[in-house]
Amino acid sequence: MIHSLVLTKNLRTFRKLSGVACVLVGLTTATMVMAQGKDEPIQPITPVKVTNAAKVALGKKLFFDPRLSKSGFISCNSCHNLSMGGSDNLPTSIGDRWQQGPINSPTVLNSSLNFVQFWDGRAKDLQEQAGGPIANPKEMASSHDLAVDVLNSIPQYREEFAKIYGNKKLDIALVTDAIAEFEKTLKTPNSRFDKWLKGDKKAITAQEKKGYALFKDSGCVACHNGEGVGASSFQKMGVIEPYKTQNPAMGRAEVTKEDADRFNFKVPTLRNVELTYPYFHDGAAKTLEDAVMVMGRLQLGQNYTAEETAQIVAFLKTLTGDQPKLILPILPPSQNNTPRPKPFE
Amino acid sequence: MIHSLVLTKNLRTFRKLSGVACVLVGLTTATMVMAQGKDEPIQPITPVKVTNAAKVALGKKLFFDPRLSKSGFISCNSCHNLSMGGSDNLPTSIGDRWQQGPINSPTVLNSSLNFVQFWDGRAKDLQEQAGGPIANPKEMASSHDLAVDVLNSIPQYREEFAKIYGNKKLDIALVTDAIAEFEKTLKTPNSRFDKWLKGDKKAITAQEKKGYALFKDSGCVACHNGEGVGASSFQKMGVIEPYKTQNPAMGRAEVTKEDADRFNFKVPTLRNVELTYPYFHDGAAKTLEDAVMVMGRLQLGQNYTAEETAQIVAFLKTLTGDQPKLILPILPPSQNNTPRPKPFE
Repeated sequence: MIHSLVLTKNLRTFRKLSGVACVLVGLTTATMVMAQGKDEPIQPITPVKVTNAAKVALGKKLFFDPRLSKSGFISCNSCHNLSMGGSDNLPTSIGDRWQQGPINSPTVLNSSLNFVQFWDGRAKDLQEQAGGPIANPKEMASSHDLAVDVLNSIPQYREEFAKIYGNKKLDIALVTDAIAEFEKTLKTPNSRFDKWLKGDKKAITAQEKKGYALFKDSGCVACHNGEGVGASSFQKMGVIEPYKTQNPAMGRAEVTKEDADRFNFKVPTLRNVELTYPYFHDGAAKTLEDAVMVMGRLQLGQNYTAEETAQIVAFLKTLTGDQPKLILPILPPSQNNTPRPKPFE
Repeated sequence: MIHSLVLTKNLRTFRKLSGVACVLVGLTTATMVMAQGKDEPIQPITPVKVTNAAKVALGKKLFFDPRLSKSGFISCNSCHNLSMGGSDNLPTSIGDRWQQGPINSPTVLNSSLNFVQFWDGRAKDLQEQAGGPIANPKEMASSHDLAVDVLNSIPQYREEFAKIYGNKKLDIALVTDAIAEFEKTLKTPNSRFDKWLKGDKKAITAQEKKGYALFKDSGCVACHNGEGVGASSFQKMGVIEPYKTQNPAMGRAEVTKEDADRFNFKVPTLRNVELTYPYFHDGAAKTLEDAVMVMGRLQLGQNYTAEETAQIVAFLKTLTGDQPKLILPILPPSQNNTPRPKPFE
């Protein structure tokens, strides 16, 4: 939906991308405009409107509550750490009993802008996503039933759920609904780039402007556009050259079982990309420079010079927005009948 | 120091503890007064005076920064979770590569009131304590050098240290000094019991008052007294009856190498004890009821009835104070030259 909006908004000028036309065959038929300001292919982040503060507050508690994991040690915030750009800054995450996760943990910041959730898009929205890690034996390793039993045993949680959801039975759908409601508030407005988009000409430097021009001219913006600067399409990882990795993830094909979807991944948002290292679905790119050079070569057939790379990186760092200012939640204590964590069983 | 203060303050009435005189032989010659109000053996928590807000802010960042661990996954807050009473609510903690820790994680709340740090008192203060887990191969598994290298590679950290410490070389002493300064702010004033101590007669219920009377009359207060309601002496675990545990910790004897110190542990604070389950150095007591009954029997030769246990537990729950209201810190991002975490190596 976001993507089509972007397409509609920008469907004014079909631009010839010299040298990257071949790329676009494999990509969506994204279009870009060259005029500055509101006609840019990237739009500023719209502010969050909180309509149900009680639900957001409950969701925040749940997001930080490690009792949703079997071990009592891993919370949503463990791998989507809101002190660290909503990610864990590890190539792949650490799960129950220190199991190595299969894929790089995507940032939860601005994740409401993702057109689908997970790298392979197997969840349609944040609520559907939130149920995944809780019950994944390689991640939080609990079960939906156990997580609900834990919450149901704690009077403060029961009361909060009842206040928000009335007589509805406390089940995993309510738990994930509250978590999603909290996550929707995790937008990061007011980046320097957004200020520039809104007309503050001094918000970004000459080097950053050059980087942005190059980002557009060389075709990055074909996939990284809109409010999310990405997050609106699946794209093949390795268009011009194949991407070499030890990581077995097959991307979208794991959902569709279609061979054509092999190595198609959700394009990640570039919002706050300065904070969400390392990069790619396998976390193999340690630095932004690595990521830009590899993407340029593999997706666009561009061999950026060191200077060009530095310009694009400088531009990307202007996408760091206001990080959520959150008061650490105080979690209601377990009761005598609360199922206890089992970290070593 | 705190302990001797308590002794001095309360050295007005030597009270005969019928049935527990034998206990006191093995304990300190603590004394208690029966009058209410300011003559009580427990004193209200004094408020924190922050004199160096910048240092506290830096210490908070460090407390939440998992880059002080080898894996990049474990921060101070992992085992001293400020959402959960400053503890991890596990019998023993989870360390690097999911190693099972040797002992129950003590709460960081009010830890500035501890007369020494760690269960065996091997650190004299919070600063000395803070260096321990960072370099402990079973806990955060980093080294002091590596932790300093990580911080030194990050300009925002360098600037903050320079602003606070001037030209001093960024080393582990500064890191632990800042962490300790933050931890000193983690006091929990305004518990209902403290309000009662200060004269608000309605702050605690009749049942809670009975519990407190029993807590004093049966001798708990011999060790659990002062502002910290404990935390001011070493005491033997298992005075009347031996304490049976699979946990090999020997307590104070591990420091002094004295046989007489075997099974002597620092008396834990009972502040916020409602939140810091499970209990004892081995985390074997799952509930407050368990803890009260075992302590009564082993330390005091008391077999509390269910009603008495409930009264003491009710009193203990009045010791939950205002939890620290903290804005989650935003951590400065790693740079290209920042040593990367090694979670799986």
